[in-house]
Amino acid sequence: MTVHILFAAKVESWSDYEAPLRETLDAAGLDYVLDCDMQAEQVEYIIYAPNSGLTDFGLFPRLKAVLCLWAGVEDVVGNASLRVPLARMVDEDGLTQGMVEWVTGHTLRHHLGMDAHIVNPDQRWDCTPPAIAQDRPVTVLGLGALGLACAQSLAHLGFPVSGWSRSAKDLSGITCFSGADGLDDALSGAQIVVLLLPNTPATENTLNAARLALLAPGAFIINPGRGTLIDDNDLLDALDSGQVAHATLDVFRVEPLPQDHPYWPHPNVTVTPHIASFTRPSTAARVIAANIARSEQSEPMLHLVDRSVGY
Amino acid sequence: MTVHILFAAKVESWSDYEAPLRETLDAAGLDYVLDCDMQAEQVEYIIYAPNSGLTDFGLFPRLKAVLCLWAGVEDVVGNASLRVPLARMVDEDGLTQGMVEWVTGHTLRHHLGMDAHIVNPDQRWDCTPPAIAQDRPVTVLGLGALGLACAQSLAHLGFPVSGWSRSAKDLSGITCFSGADGLDDALSGAQIVVLLLPNTPATENTLNAARLALLAPGAFIINPGRGTLIDDNDLLDALDSGQVAHATLDVFRVEPLPQDHPYWPHPNVTVTPHIASFTRPSTAARVIAANIARSEQSEPMLHLVDRSVGY
Repeated sequence: MTVHILFAAKVESWSDYEAPLRETLDAAGLDYVLDCDMQAEQVEYIIYAPNSGLTDFGLFPRLKAVLCLWAGVEDVVGNASLRVPLARMVDEDGLTQGMVEWVTGHTLRHHLGMDAHIVNPDQRWDCTPPAIAQDRPVTVLGLGALGLACAQSLAHLGFPVSGWSRSAKDLSGITCFSGADGLDDALSGAQIVVLLLPNTPATENTLNAARLALLAPGAFIINPGRGTLIDDNDLLDALDSGQVAHATLDVFRVEPLPQDHPYWPHPNVTVTPHIASFTRPSTAARVIAANIARSEQSEPMLHLVDRSVGY
Repeated sequence: MTVHILFAAKVESWSDYEAPLRETLDAAGLDYVLDCDMQAEQVEYIIYAPNSGLTDFGLFPRLKAVLCLWAGVEDVVGNASLRVPLARMVDEDGLTQGMVEWVTGHTLRHHLGMDAHIVNPDQRWDCTPPAIAQDRPVTVLGLGALGLACAQSLAHLGFPVSGWSRSAKDLSGITCFSGADGLDDALSGAQIVVLLLPNTPATENTLNAARLALLAPGAFIINPGRGTLIDDNDLLDALDSGQVAHATLDVFRVEPLPQDHPYWPHPNVTVTPHIASFTRPSTAARVIAANIARSEQSEPMLHLVDRSVGY
């Protein structure tokens, strides 16, 4: 039986993805038709980017599953027309690895106080040594595929790492907290906080004034997760008071970040343009092909979204 | 028998070191006198910083060994009055850990192109994704205690790491080169080069114009080793031609780096003030005490300098 797969993403993605998808679908031994345009009655799988413009999944009577190209599914998970399984992108080799590099790099940047050397117009030679990692507690909020990998990378470098997740976890080398009470404990005294929670109604404004006050004075905030996790006004207040020394933000409520947003000119905010991690076609294609093959062999698909919790 | 130990370093170091040294010497079970001033005839061990002003070791008739507080011994190794064993500082917990953090941090900084986000007055939102570590070959020159630890940290993050050492080594996960021919092979195509060679006549100007030309165009240089390892004029030429995109330098021929040195204002040079790693009293004291205890028990001392090669 020939499997019919629709690629529904921005048109420019098709040229990036077509070759790696064909290569990995071939390697998986599938007999398939793959195209970015297809009669709706034929479509069995949709490889999907939420910014594709496709929103009515009811058009596809034979649809078996939707495979999202993105790790964040908040723009599709509530779509009432979607009645088949939805898989998130979990791309260890591409997306997770890129996130680990970005988070580890910016954590070390703040830990080592690099900015004072990168920008030093007064040519100051100040030999004050940086702290050592073991004296710099780091807290990672969110212990999914991305948060866990980042927490492990930081622990491997010697940072004392605390992690928080909605449901309880037990992870070697990481002090784990969970639930509503655990969140305050996880944040208390943290000098660096990394946000890698999913975007759900429950996580909105996780970092608000009350929680920012729990951190060690002069803490650093690193947000490669979702813009909604932070109350922006509360963060700006904490930056102005010095409670937060610096925030490095990769994600925002509106992207690109509007040119008149106060984050742009703030001396203690670094804006990065949603590059902390992104899906790489070569590695993502392998994940997609393997998941379609599992479905066709009646094996459970991987990385399915639990729509009751939103991720 | 009471062991007599002279502490010979800058006077301000005595207050940093006295308490941790006493604590670790006590813990080692030694019966000792420790002071920063002592009759020369009594001295059996000297805990030594090369900038202490002490240069005539012939004054100490009962001297058994000199224990250097520094990893770099180039200012003492050639001292003809020194006729007893000389130990370098190898401080895994303090010095090595600090170096790993600094090298890993600045490698990730250049790999991720952080500077363009840290300093971005035009508020550019450029989503070009950074390369992933597996596509960024890094070469570490010097595979002693510091170089090896840094190479392993970078390999653990996914960078393809080549290492070069004077004598051949075989290290898991690191492509090892050695000898004069191996040096050119190790540098060919490297995108990031980390210098952690000792300062000896043989290593002076290791990175000269010919070797800089072997690197991938737009390479990054990271030097936390010794200022003499680089031909400064050749590096400035390579920076101006673009062959080297950026150099992050922690060590210099003259320190503090003179205010009129061309490195200071160069847009593609980052100067850090010899902070990549330094000896921390609490951890260094343990190393010193353990080595004196070994000597008193007639066990071979650790980290002895081979004066024929200079480190």
